[in-house]
Amino acid sequence: MPSISQRGQIMPESPIRKLVPLSNAAKARGVKVYHLNIGQPDLPSPEVGLEALKHIDRKILEYSPSEGLLSLRQKLEKYYHRFNINVDVDDIIVTTGGSEAVLFAFMACLDPGDEIIVPEPAYANYMAFAISAGAKIVTVPSSIDEGFALPPVERFEALITPKTKGILICNPNNPTGYLYTQKEMNQIRDIVKKYDLFLFSDEVYREFCYTGAPYISAFHLPGIEEQVVLIDSVSKRYSECGIRIGAIITKHKELKKNVMKFCQARLSPPLLGQIVAEASIDAPREYMLMTYNEYVERRKFLIDGLNKIPGCYSPIPMGAFYTVVSLPVDDADKFCEWCLREFEYEGQTVFMAPASGFYTSEGVGRNEVRMAYVLNKEDLSKALKVLGEALKAYPGHTIR
Amino acid sequence: MPSISQRGQIMPESPIRKLVPLSNAAKARGVKVYHLNIGQPDLPSPEVGLEALKHIDRKILEYSPSEGLLSLRQKLEKYYHRFNINVDVDDIIVTTGGSEAVLFAFMACLDPGDEIIVPEPAYANYMAFAISAGAKIVTVPSSIDEGFALPPVERFEALITPKTKGILICNPNNPTGYLYTQKEMNQIRDIVKKYDLFLFSDEVYREFCYTGAPYISAFHLPGIEEQVVLIDSVSKRYSECGIRIGAIITKHKELKKNVMKFCQARLSPPLLGQIVAEASIDAPREYMLMTYNEYVERRKFLIDGLNKIPGCYSPIPMGAFYTVVSLPVDDADKFCEWCLREFEYEGQTVFMAPASGFYTSEGVGRNEVRMAYVLNKEDLSKALKVLGEALKAYPGHTIR
Repeated sequence: MPSISQRGQIMPESPIRKLVPLSNAAKARGVKVYHLNIGQPDLPSPEVGLEALKHIDRKILEYSPSEGLLSLRQKLEKYYHRFNINVDVDDIIVTTGGSEAVLFAFMACLDPGDEIIVPEPAYANYMAFAISAGAKIVTVPSSIDEGFALPPVERFEALITPKTKGILICNPNNPTGYLYTQKEMNQIRDIVKKYDLFLFSDEVYREFCYTGAPYISAFHLPGIEEQVVLIDSVSKRYSECGIRIGAIITKHKELKKNVMKFCQARLSPPLLGQIVAEASIDAPREYMLMTYNEYVERRKFLIDGLNKIPGCYSPIPMGAFYTVVSLPVDDADKFCEWCLREFEYEGQTVFMAPASGFYTSEGVGRNEVRMAYVLNKEDLSKALKVLGEALKAYPGHTIR
Repeated sequence: MPSISQRGQIMPESPIRKLVPLSNAAKARGVKVYHLNIGQPDLPSPEVGLEALKHIDRKILEYSPSEGLLSLRQKLEKYYHRFNINVDVDDIIVTTGGSEAVLFAFMACLDPGDEIIVPEPAYANYMAFAISAGAKIVTVPSSIDEGFALPPVERFEALITPKTKGILICNPNNPTGYLYTQKEMNQIRDIVKKYDLFLFSDEVYREFCYTGAPYISAFHLPGIEEQVVLIDSVSKRYSECGIRIGAIITKHKELKKNVMKFCQARLSPPLLGQIVAEASIDAPREYMLMTYNEYVERRKFLIDGLNKIPGCYSPIPMGAFYTVVSLPVDDADKFCEWCLREFEYEGQTVFMAPASGFYTSEGVGRNEVRMAYVLNKEDLSKALKVLGEALKAYPGHTIR
């Protein structure tokens, strides 16, 4: 039988994925599982988007342009202007989710052997897309003790080689919820400029910043406008993960042309999703506020609750809807598995994402998990109770 | 400014794409352009699919499973059984169009430097996906003089090296409309078996076979079941190119697992498209017959009309909705460009796809174009008249 590619074999399997069968087995036993493991918001999609869907009155569901519907790109242009991101409609290429945006950005910027530097913990799928492109992700660890702040610039510089083509940030961050400060963004700009790098900036959680300070996009950084490759998606901000609509935004003319070749090869982003996304950009202020306020409340509730549990610690996430928490356990992979396989408290358990999947450095973050606050407060409250009980019962507890 | 990837730079720009601005300019001048260049059917999508779309009653448009909705995969299983393709639901992985199916098949089977052999002329985007995967497409020319029959097996064998991992066929064929015979399929099977190769079989035009002979899928070939990687899509058969729903079907266990890693990285195929595709599989027999009969009539009308034009020749395509035609011109690229840039007949012109985009061998098929019969007969009739007049007027005519 012919053998499969090495490429796929070296792609790490996510520790979250490995736990899914255990979660399903727990449910089959009648155990209620609180899902803190996923980035699928539980809040409703905006009514304007759902209504647009019901009113699609087409006889042929045909290809859209490879770069996306012009009307959607025009709406996106206006949307970005609201955030003082000064891009033109021609700078915006619609993709099949933020996932395809990352893949095409890597494909169009990186050749096999090229390197990009990424602060970790980091979204695990960056690694998968880098492997797809034959490129290498080099990580700079940030630490929970410093609240996941940007590691010192010297640590980035120490990793730069002739193969380094870019730096990738996710801001606000998945998995940490960290929001880079103006000072940190300036540091990133300086290094990107000094070494003539691409700055891949994943800003899909832009709407969820919980500080009064103004939001800083990579496009706000003067002097590197043509080096920024912005990754976007409507998935998180409109609870529309399933419609698969994202975007690559770049002012680098040659890069645009190069990205378009990959877009043309796959013909078209999803037509139906584009129609829904376009309508959703008109979601009323009340919708965005409702969503925002809900996350603000949950954040306070979850973080306060976590820090009350003996031995647990979570820094305050300033954005997105995740936090990385350190637990008083020997090994978070084992603990998360144990919660699903062996533990239950009053017929309930919790599904958390072991942080090991977000680190590439060996042995780092072994006692950390990522939690997403995509449950309502009542369920969060129950999940916190269950977590506390689980920690008490867990044989690998470290501070008993 | 940082430089873009070599990968994208070597990706050839399609000669069709290059002509689009000329077509747009012609329209802007008020010229009616008959589009024979594209594979976007003009026939309506099935009513059951459009109705399902209007009745999507969800509050959250959330991720679907990475392998696709179970209900869609179950429907697909039954659909394949109708064609005696004996696959299980577990063999079916839903993709974002046939495009992603090809990309993921290549990513999961091929490493940089690996080779696959493809009869040409061939669908141009196979090349783009191979370049994305760092793999090499090696072509075996078929010729219009032999009606685009499968080239002799010895020509395939002559190209096999230790790097050869597979053979790719498109059946029924885009761009030629050729349908492989039982004898040819057996030859392909023998070589795939002898050299332990993958057989990538793109069968998206399966519903459009215009002979009484039974349709032969790669999965009908005994003894290579685990080597077949079937590429499918609902785009063409239901006129639903825009919903971006395709599939990879394989019985190779390791390969399935490998493909799933790429699927998991991109999280989810489009939810809305999956709902429409699932409903469309129930399109009544009348719909499929109406579509089929329409293409049969157009095929006869177009091919007869083409062969009546002095110096034009088209073999009879036995499937799909394309044909490759030889024209009495010096250079089909130039002729297609000239039609859009300089020619008009009673305010009309034609947009054809130069066949050069479907060949990689230098100088082959220079006087050929691909035409898609995705226009109604009235428009086809006008397009044929315009083509005849264009050939009379074209300075590079070769048989005057």
